[in-house]
Amino acid sequence: MSSSETPLTAEVHTALEIAKRGCDELIVERDFAQKLARSQSTGQPLRIKLGLDPTAPDIHLGHTVVLNKMRQLQDLGHTVIFLIGDFTSTIGDPSGRNSTRPPLTPEQVKDNAKTYYDQAHLVLDPSRTEVRYNSEWCDQLGSRGMIQLASRYTVARMMERDDFTKRFQSHTPISVHEFLYPLLQGYDSVQLKADLELGGTDQKFNLLVGRELQKEYGQEQQCILTMPLLVGTDGVEKMSKSKGNYIGITESANSMFGKLMSISDTLMWSYYELLSFKSLDEIAGLRQQIENGTNPRDVKVALAQEIITRFHSAQAADEALRDFEARFRHGEIPQDLPEISVNGAPLGIVKLLREAGLAQSNSEANRSIDQGGVRVDGTRIEDKGLALEAGTYVVQVGKRRFAKVTVN
Amino acid sequence: MSSSETPLTAEVHTALEIAKRGCDELIVERDFAQKLARSQSTGQPLRIKLGLDPTAPDIHLGHTVVLNKMRQLQDLGHTVIFLIGDFTSTIGDPSGRNSTRPPLTPEQVKDNAKTYYDQAHLVLDPSRTEVRYNSEWCDQLGSRGMIQLASRYTVARMMERDDFTKRFQSHTPISVHEFLYPLLQGYDSVQLKADLELGGTDQKFNLLVGRELQKEYGQEQQCILTMPLLVGTDGVEKMSKSKGNYIGITESANSMFGKLMSISDTLMWSYYELLSFKSLDEIAGLRQQIENGTNPRDVKVALAQEIITRFHSAQAADEALRDFEARFRHGEIPQDLPEISVNGAPLGIVKLLREAGLAQSNSEANRSIDQGGVRVDGTRIEDKGLALEAGTYVVQVGKRRFAKVTVN
Repeated sequence: MSSSETPLTAEVHTALEIAKRGCDELIVERDFAQKLARSQSTGQPLRIKLGLDPTAPDIHLGHTVVLNKMRQLQDLGHTVIFLIGDFTSTIGDPSGRNSTRPPLTPEQVKDNAKTYYDQAHLVLDPSRTEVRYNSEWCDQLGSRGMIQLASRYTVARMMERDDFTKRFQSHTPISVHEFLYPLLQGYDSVQLKADLELGGTDQKFNLLVGRELQKEYGQEQQCILTMPLLVGTDGVEKMSKSKGNYIGITESANSMFGKLMSISDTLMWSYYELLSFKSLDEIAGLRQQIENGTNPRDVKVALAQEIITRFHSAQAADEALRDFEARFRHGEIPQDLPEISVNGAPLGIVKLLREAGLAQSNSEANRSIDQGGVRVDGTRIEDKGLALEAGTYVVQVGKRRFAKVTVN
Repeated sequence: MSSSETPLTAEVHTALEIAKRGCDELIVERDFAQKLARSQSTGQPLRIKLGLDPTAPDIHLGHTVVLNKMRQLQDLGHTVIFLIGDFTSTIGDPSGRNSTRPPLTPEQVKDNAKTYYDQAHLVLDPSRTEVRYNSEWCDQLGSRGMIQLASRYTVARMMERDDFTKRFQSHTPISVHEFLYPLLQGYDSVQLKADLELGGTDQKFNLLVGRELQKEYGQEQQCILTMPLLVGTDGVEKMSKSKGNYIGITESANSMFGKLMSISDTLMWSYYELLSFKSLDEIAGLRQQIENGTNPRDVKVALAQEIITRFHSAQAADEALRDFEARFRHGEIPQDLPEISVNGAPLGIVKLLREAGLAQSNSEANRSIDQGGVRVDGTRIEDKGLALEAGTYVVQVGKRRFAKVTVN
């Protein structure tokens, strides 16, 4: 595009800043700026692709990082294409090695996609969202088309994908069909004539395949925008259902509130950047308020209120806040505790507090016990050598932090 | 099969010896013996697969090594399946890197297959030959079937194929679709329920894929029989049209005769083993005759006669012999010279004689010149330092050996 670059207007600069907020990488920024400029001058919205694997339809806040970015781009006038990968999910894992990927029936795919879509629409603007199923063109490829598609990419480039490199080196089997899946995902971009594809940082390789294939097919290449993976409530690992550190978007307002209030003050800023729709200027203002003496708790409350309003309502957010404050005042155990699982029974109380995210360090855990602030099932703990057998306990630290902890 | 092995009859032992004659490898011999035994007791012929790439329909003696083995197995009562790989040859090389593999039209495939089949039937028994086209099942696979097929094999095992290993290590591109071709060839064996697949030693990897896939699909595994690649008339490289060291099966009787008489006495035994239908006992008898004083030339004449009879007629073979003998007697330059190409103009006469196969070594070439036995275009050569510019020359060594040599 360098030969005939359109000069960028102030609006395009602003749109570019919105697109880049919180992102990990935008490839290629200069090309994307040109796409934005062209869209502005022609009035033709950009086509922004989001691929969805319809095997696990439950959305947590980690998934919404990308959805939020989609929404921001929709608000700039662009079209989101919600691409449902039904072709591969109705095949499942044909090698049979991955028992967690059974083939889905077309009905299951439709049900899962609907569940996902209903949830996603708490974030997305339905009037600027197209839904497509990739079986539409993947089945039409046929066996000849599949060979022709596979001829567009080399084994060496495929091997550059991080997980393939590692598995090949460690002699963990890679089935040949696994090389076809990134190509099919890239072929979706060709069929959709996508201008931009979004994904988590772990999707970068696959998103780049789309760029390459569009070039092979003589199209203008899509840009790619990767978003960081949201860290879970434990402040350590990426948010994931299997890690128990997630906040589901259909959880009750009280549960969301409790979990959001339990995150560290540091993690709060990452959540503001990736989950809040407040502008970066507003967020900078909040940082300034804390420096001027505002309690970080109040800023965390504002974040929890914004998110609960999005997924429930402003009223539910207010009720959750009142409920939370009542607990502080009356020292009651709240009804709706965050549930946390930890391993290693019998587990020492200090380690348990740390692993459950109720203390940030061993010394903080020790200090809380010394100050008489730790209770297990209502009993104050004085013995720092206490080990808990497998079972479920209500653990309280100070007046505010509660969790239902299952020791395995 | 080990749990219920059928004892082998004398007939099965004989059949096994015929199958193994001249072969490079039979995998797995014990299983093949059981297949032969079962076929004998049930009267059900074995299904023997020969894959044919219908891009180059002209057959030379090198190709007939495998065809001869097929014929021997037909004579034992088994069925040959002549499998025409039209599916892949109508795709060509979709990566566009190999310009020598343009996609063929279905008509070109049919024409080439017919040409090949007509020639092959000079060796094969038509009444025990089935012809099949693999597009029959490969097109039916569809894109889903292709993915399922690809899931049956790992990248690591595919990389074990010698040429893939070398190309990957030397950074020579391998397109992903090249991993699909051996799988399709193996899938042909599944569809054909082949008992045995034949090929050159260079096909061993692909033939083994067929064994693996049959197992994956719950079938009894085919055995594989690889035949060595026939060395060309130069005694050095494998017979190949591009090397100019070949004998085409549609060449004239005189040309065949001349070329066969030009091979070395050592190479003659390899040709006897791989090209003659004489029994191994008869061939041992011929060796004995030479030890007892018979001129090797007479044994070579017998080989030439057998081969010309197969591809022309007994009468043509006799005429070629008479013509050849007349040339010896009268010192005439024969009409129908073998044509040989050599590179490296200007080329020294000694090197030319060796490379053209007119002398087995430098010392033999030197000796022939010293004895006044070498003529170029009729002129006796005395200067061993003579270098020949690019061009075509009639070169004669002694009374019997003539060739039209093109120096490039």
